[in-house]
Amino acid sequence: MRKVKPEGSSRRGFLRSTPGLYAASLLEASAADAQSAEAAHDVTRTLARYLASSKPGDLPENVRREGTRTLVNYVGCALGGSKEDAVSNALAALAPLYPGGKTTIFGRREKMDMLHGAMINGISSHVLDFDDTHLKTVIHPGGPVAPALLALAEHQKLTGEQLLHALILGCEVECRIGNAVYPAHYDIGWHITGSVGAFGAAAAAGKILGLDETKMLWALGVAASQPVGLREMFGSMTKSFHPGRAAQNGLTAALLAAKGFTSSEQSIEAKRGWANVLSSTQKYGEITGQLGERFETLLNTYKPFACGIVTHPTIDGCIELRNEHKLKPEQIRSVELTVHPLVPELTGKQAPTVGLEGKFSIYYIAAVALITGAAGPTQFTDQLVRDPGVNALREKVHITVDKALKEDQVRVSIQLADGRVVTRFIEHAVGSVEKPMPDAALDAKFLDLASVALPAGRAKRLLELSRTVATLPDAAAISRAAAA
Amino acid sequence: MRKVKPEGSSRRGFLRSTPGLYAASLLEASAADAQSAEAAHDVTRTLARYLASSKPGDLPENVRREGTRTLVNYVGCALGGSKEDAVSNALAALAPLYPGGKTTIFGRREKMDMLHGAMINGISSHVLDFDDTHLKTVIHPGGPVAPALLALAEHQKLTGEQLLHALILGCEVECRIGNAVYPAHYDIGWHITGSVGAFGAAAAAGKILGLDETKMLWALGVAASQPVGLREMFGSMTKSFHPGRAAQNGLTAALLAAKGFTSSEQSIEAKRGWANVLSSTQKYGEITGQLGERFETLLNTYKPFACGIVTHPTIDGCIELRNEHKLKPEQIRSVELTVHPLVPELTGKQAPTVGLEGKFSIYYIAAVALITGAAGPTQFTDQLVRDPGVNALREKVHITVDKALKEDQVRVSIQLADGRVVTRFIEHAVGSVEKPMPDAALDAKFLDLASVALPAGRAKRLLELSRTVATLPDAAAISRAAAA
Repeated sequence: MRKVKPEGSSRRGFLRSTPGLYAASLLEASAADAQSAEAAHDVTRTLARYLASSKPGDLPENVRREGTRTLVNYVGCALGGSKEDAVSNALAALAPLYPGGKTTIFGRREKMDMLHGAMINGISSHVLDFDDTHLKTVIHPGGPVAPALLALAEHQKLTGEQLLHALILGCEVECRIGNAVYPAHYDIGWHITGSVGAFGAAAAAGKILGLDETKMLWALGVAASQPVGLREMFGSMTKSFHPGRAAQNGLTAALLAAKGFTSSEQSIEAKRGWANVLSSTQKYGEITGQLGERFETLLNTYKPFACGIVTHPTIDGCIELRNEHKLKPEQIRSVELTVHPLVPELTGKQAPTVGLEGKFSIYYIAAVALITGAAGPTQFTDQLVRDPGVNALREKVHITVDKALKEDQVRVSIQLADGRVVTRFIEHAVGSVEKPMPDAALDAKFLDLASVALPAGRAKRLLELSRTVATLPDAAAISRAAAA
Repeated sequence: MRKVKPEGSSRRGFLRSTPGLYAASLLEASAADAQSAEAAHDVTRTLARYLASSKPGDLPENVRREGTRTLVNYVGCALGGSKEDAVSNALAALAPLYPGGKTTIFGRREKMDMLHGAMINGISSHVLDFDDTHLKTVIHPGGPVAPALLALAEHQKLTGEQLLHALILGCEVECRIGNAVYPAHYDIGWHITGSVGAFGAAAAAGKILGLDETKMLWALGVAASQPVGLREMFGSMTKSFHPGRAAQNGLTAALLAAKGFTSSEQSIEAKRGWANVLSSTQKYGEITGQLGERFETLLNTYKPFACGIVTHPTIDGCIELRNEHKLKPEQIRSVELTVHPLVPELTGKQAPTVGLEGKFSIYYIAAVALITGAAGPTQFTDQLVRDPGVNALREKVHITVDKALKEDQVRVSIQLADGRVVTRFIEHAVGSVEKPMPDAALDAKFLDLASVALPAGRAKRLLELSRTVATLPDAAAISRAAAA
């Protein structure tokens, strides 16, 4: 007799039926975490109730501003990634199935059905590894939520205000659930953006569809039952599939729930719910605490540079000195970088020969940042890596390791031909929570990414639409402007 | 720096980065299971190589026969479930998005796109809990695989021989992966049909698409990254969503891989692969051992009766006595059942008043089986539960508990009005591996289920097509015949 009925959230009941060792692990985790386990009764319901009752006007202005920045960064990344093989191959596989599709694929001519359109636009947002990051959980919040909403906006009329509100709610749901299980869940092997992403997309799409508390519970439940993403896929195209499929899964969940498709109503906290099955620790207070008062969206960050994060302080320092002193390459006699030990360990390549290798050469990176004032995707082409002018400067870059420095610190010292020495100490690299990327830098990043797919004038227009999303009478204007 | 590259399958490396308790559990499991961990290098590749090279002629006749029975049972169940709310609600949510769909929805007039068509036809196959069962793992093998193949058959020409071959390969993949992680994986809380289902659908669809070893690896990898199904959903519509979504996910994985969409090539056995992330124990030999020689498909079983398995011996015994002695209700003075203690515990309701309650009344079940010779879905209607003739016999049924009996045993003793007593001891109920459901009974089940959606003549024609699948020049004939 294998007849299982939905039951309460007692962990003891679960443990009776698990094998000894796994159970022992959970039992000890449970003892350590007894208080939150006690409070685990209405986690999903509390969240659903908040989502169903939230109104755009409830969100503070700084949260709306960060939500807008999340959208701007998402749109730029989806355009920048739109020509990558992962996107092209996915379209080659699926676009022929949807000849009458009406959903815009960012940066492309193809159109898709709404659900797979959301998926493809999620893939493109992640494929450059240049998307937003909630650093507490390494979740990339925008990718699973924004494309679901933008696809929905082409299907049914919604205002930019509605879209922004739902986007923020979706990011809150992802990051709060992520907080509750990070780092255990990530360490076990889940790519957390994909595994929490469907919750965010379901919540956001569910808000647009006007789900009441019960249907929102069902939407979250259908989402809970479809986590996406093993970290084992890192290094393959399936990595960027994760946020895309999460967008599709969450949107599907909301559509099903809207038509009465039922699920568990304790999908997160039940003894065989998402948090217990996919993680060995649970902090439910992270999900339900201070809803509507504490906003994880405020902690979202945007990568300013298209290479590994240990190089960011160096780039930041070089660009600051370049701009401040209007440095020209021919003025520079030598560049001394004092860095954390990880910098040469991870990016110690002296003489890169192709674009991808450039990302692993702190020497090249410093040189190209000093010459171009940037380190976006267009700074990592084969052509630029082989440029004689860049290489001449690259050979003047020297490294000193200082174990006392933190990972996000650097000391840059540039000796000039006229004998002057200009220096800069970077305490936190730009793009961190402590030193957020300025709007102007985010806009520049957007335009650089968009240039892959759109002429400059159209890219500027799309940036303007994204920046002013809250005022748009029709949010689909963004998608329409993002078509190639 | 959170930069993770695909790595080998060393568990030690994994353990360094996991929290203490979970790691301790895995460490001990690992020590206990050290030999299979050693042999964990080429699990996914060995499986992919077998799949890519397998030919229809390689399958023994008895395996082909059981594969055909799996298909017959699948088609019947999908028709029988086609009018249920879970199916209607899913169609209400999704069919409007696919107005030009060409994929048949079994038992319905709606058509869908190929991918969601596979999903809906998987939902309907499971919603009555009447589908096939691989008893070693409680996997329902047909539901995630058959609808993916039948949807593909309407999209590109394939013969019945190809479909049968791929169906069997898909079932092998599901059950072998299931064997490797059962019961730990199921106990943790995964609905195993959904969590292994995408592997089966990916393998089967991948075979039809002609994937070579490398692309088959990618298909399995994309499938690995999308497990579906928390057991927490049991009791809600999301339970039957699991095999349907697994069918869709596996089919998507194969389509993507065919166009060069890459994934990990050790998706099952890598240290952060599917088996380590979703289970605390792994027996990889179950996946790679005796491929092409040992067939799990031979262990597939079919439920003869639409109610809990503890009642099956009673129904079996009653029907055998009824048919052998051509019993009429008016001949019966009393019915004595000697049963396992679980029988009255789970199905002890004396006087059911609605159809669903009838499933929990061994008294009603014995009576209706003696009168109608069956216990299919049509035996559990409100009308029949209230039928005076059935109720008169129901009141003549008495129970004695015998702890010495096994769960699948019963002693039935019927006293007749003429003074005779007829008895039957059931050692194993029909539908078990030991006493397989005869073809004739499977056909009768099919026709009973199909009657929900098709007129008798068309149901018979569809049964004939399913039974003779291996001879069909065009496998899509089955789907076409299954439309309402």
